[in-house]
Amino acid sequence: MQRSPIKHCRACGAPVVYRLPDDGDTKPRAVCTACQTIHYENPLNVVGTVPAWGPDGEHVLLCKRNIEPRLGKWTLPAGFMELGETTAEGALRETDEEAGAQIEMGPLFTLMNVARVGQVHLYYRARLLSDRFAPGPETQEARLFTEAEVPWDEIAFRTVRETLLHYFADRRAGRFGFHTLDID
Amino acid sequence: MQRSPIKHCRACGAPVVYRLPDDGDTKPRAVCTACQTIHYENPLNVVGTVPAWGPDGEHVLLCKRNIEPRLGKWTLPAGFMELGETTAEGALRETDEEAGAQIEMGPLFTLMNVARVGQVHLYYRARLLSDRFAPGPETQEARLFTEAEVPWDEIAFRTVRETLLHYFADRRAGRFGFHTLDID
Repeated sequence: MQRSPIKHCRACGAPVVYRLPDDGDTKPRAVCTACQTIHYENPLNVVGTVPAWGPDGEHVLLCKRNIEPRLGKWTLPAGFMELGETTAEGALRETDEEAGAQIEMGPLFTLMNVARVGQVHLYYRARLLSDRFAPGPETQEARLFTEAEVPWDEIAFRTVRETLLHYFADRRAGRFGFHTLDID
Repeated sequence: MQRSPIKHCRACGAPVVYRLPDDGDTKPRAVCTACQTIHYENPLNVVGTVPAWGPDGEHVLLCKRNIEPRLGKWTLPAGFMELGETTAEGALRETDEEAGAQIEMGPLFTLMNVARVGQVHLYYRARLLSDRFAPGPETQEARLFTEAEVPWDEIAFRTVRETLLHYFADRRAGRFGFHTLDID
């Protein structure tokens, strides 16, 4: 996700300057030099699922990425949350778009801050209703893996790795929790 | 938070049109008519705390709003998450800015989707280290309330009400959980 500085006002198109607004705000914002509109920039949510297969969730579904960044690496289905949907609805949508997987949504499982890139990643547990997938254009391949089969050295993102580690640890412990984590 | 449509490109200032981008995206986006930059709009996170006082957290801190919307109504300290901070860091910052309250942060307590306005609200439990407050310009008054004293008819937002209800219910039950909720 590019985060290039704002150069022009989205309301009128005039140039902006980064300065403290006149409303007592303590942070520099992009303020329009013509219409004075203040433009805020905020973190983005990435939402996804841990789709599990089998009576005791022995397998998880991973997707081999067909897009940059991390082309060819493996990820859980996830993507940017959109306006008009909840975190769970976004996670369900991404699972359908990236893997063509049919799931029953479970509870929120991980919430991870990646402050360095201005993101919050949220993963839900989910139960796969079928082991037939229909990967979308962003995915080269969608496949089930047991813990021993997971390509740990080929995982696309740290948040995916941490979520998978928690999933298999909780599964071994016989009890799934909710986990929060800050990623450097 | 205003969500007026994008009219101009933030990169070059030229007009945008809302259309399906050429990259296979299935949703209309604001696309620049000159430089073709695609502009995404995503939900915002609101982060705050439930600051509790007393050995068993009998009192909670509420702030009387000095700004619109809901001027004069009572709220938990909360505000929009900023770039460069985690959800917990944002919740701590807002508690300082709005109430001037010294707290020790606890675990995430509620996560509520307000899809209608494109927001996710997250509240952390927190322990007040002092009952002396220094409200900022956005707050008329910061005060401690027991469950019986809470001005339930004067609470500013539904997410604050739901979080307070969960707090006092969990406190009575002797066990604090983590709660997710979708608000219409």
